[in-house]
Amino acid sequence: MMHINHIKVRGFHLDMYQHVNNARYLEFLEESRWAYFEHYPLMEKIHARNCALVLVNIDINYRRPAFNNELIEVRTKVSRIGNKSISFEQNIYLEGTETLIADAIATFCILDQETHTSVEISQDERTLLEEMAV
Amino acid sequence: MMHINHIKVRGFHLDMYQHVNNARYLEFLEESRWAYFEHYPLMEKIHARNCALVLVNIDINYRRPAFNNELIEVRTKVSRIGNKSISFEQNIYLEGTETLIADAIATFCILDQETHTSVEISQDERTLLEEMAV
Amino acid sequence: MMHINHIKVRGFHLDMYQHVNNARYLEFLEESRWAYFEHYPLMEKIHARNCALVLVNIDINYRRPAFNNELIEVRTKVSRIGNKSISFEQNIYLEGTETLIADAIATFCILDQETHTSVEISQDERTLLEEMAV
Amino acid sequence: MMHINHIKVRGFHLDMYQHVNNARYLEFLEESRWAYFEHYPLMEKIHARNCALVLVNIDINYRRPAFNNELIEVRTKVSRIGNKSISFEQNIYLEGTETLIADAIATFCILDQETHTSVEISQDERTLLEEMAV
Repeated sequence: MMHINHIKVRGFHLDMYQHVNNARYLEFLEESRWAYFEHYPLMEKIHARNCALVLVNIDINYRRPAFNNELIEVRTKVSRIGNKSISFEQNIYLEGTETLIADAIATFCILDQETHTSVEISQDERTLLEEMAV
Repeated sequence: MMHINHIKVRGFHLDMYQHVNNARYLEFLEESRWAYFEHYPLMEKIHARNCALVLVNIDINYRRPAFNNELIEVRTKVSRIGNKSISFEQNIYLEGTETLIADAIATFCILDQETHTSVEISQDERTLLEEMAV
Repeated sequence: MMHINHIKVRGFHLDMYQHVNNARYLEFLEESRWAYFEHYPLMEKIHARNCALVLVNIDINYRRPAFNNELIEVRTKVSRIGNKSISFEQNIYLEGTETLIADAIATFCILDQETHTSVEISQDERTLLEEMAV
Repeated sequence: MMHINHIKVRGFHLDMYQHVNNARYLEFLEESRWAYFEHYPLMEKIHARNCALVLVNIDINYRRPAFNNELIEVRTKVSRIGNKSISFEQNIYLEGTETLIADAIATFCILDQETHTSVEISQDERTLLEEMAV
């Protein structure tokens, strides 16, 4: 299901343009993924077989600047379950509106901690991810 | 032409995984673009016609973690000159090697500060960008 | 009165030592001051006479590392009302405990935006600050 | 001896006030301490006896805002060698001038990694620190 994380823009999130800096959005996205993961035992399943969830790509569109004191919300969900990779769609809206500030796809692979190679998603993980993607 | 910016990874760039955090790379990329822009009058030309260079997309692949004390280099160049958008290719290597840490495309549009709409690249800007892309 | 701001430590707050990085605490303090100021018209009073609240000193003791996923709380209050300066005491505790993680004093002066010199706290501001310090 | 670290202020260092944000200075100080430590075997000596250099206090005065594109320099030296603690004086100037932007004292103790208690500076470390303080 979709997870919503609320953030208030503060002065130190801004840069010379008085907008939230482009790098700071990636902290907002990471914060929101961690909050999302608290609702599902995904990391536990991955760690249980001595693997790690490793970020391999972020593709982010900056749509509208976010300004000081604005309330924003990050909507996160599983958007693609590949053979060896998982994508999360993370859209940032002005809170309570459909005004899109940024939309991103964050893609991860599952890395075997021993062989340091990416491995396939297990059936158990896939079942959970499909539930998360509804 | 290609611009190279050197950065030394420090303890505060890392995160819980002891790798440079994914968001921090976007600061490395921004730092490197500003250093690159110091060699060309691109911003001056854009500002002269009351426009701004606005980041619209970053697509970054994380290839290999960067660790504490590693020396890295960001290689930046113009990679695509569209009608209304410009892309910069920014590849981060372990200094002096071809070991790729991350590769990114940062895409900008030119925004008219008065109408707040994106405008076409001028011929003057295009000539400069073509020189930068060699 | 004392204001409490809750923060959850995330992976990107940490550094090479797996503790919250020393600089990140200053963002936690700033975030907490902004949240505190939302409850009182202090900034409004200062801005109304064309002044600004300017940070002049932070003195922070690091008492105990904060680790990934820990819940912490920042307790903020006015601690000293000088002639021309105001200090806020900001203590960071492990949430719901008296385990002190860091304690800080952040001192501000009031700067006249026209003359760029620090000015005395007005009687109106002092009355509010005394209420905030209770 | 005094160590000088050069930094160029970039757009992402700023905040809503168009000045370098107060937290960012602590990254500048940390960056400069690491660069300083590369010239002396202090960390090696401390690690060799299974201890760590642990930050216990930062006291920073913000004297003058730093603006976008300014070149600044951080001058770092050992300023006090106590029984169980070491202080570093770190002053940030506009590059090549005596215009002070911020001055800070960063104080560390030496922590035994096994007992997790602070220990006295060894004679060997003291000799080195005295050399660093000249």
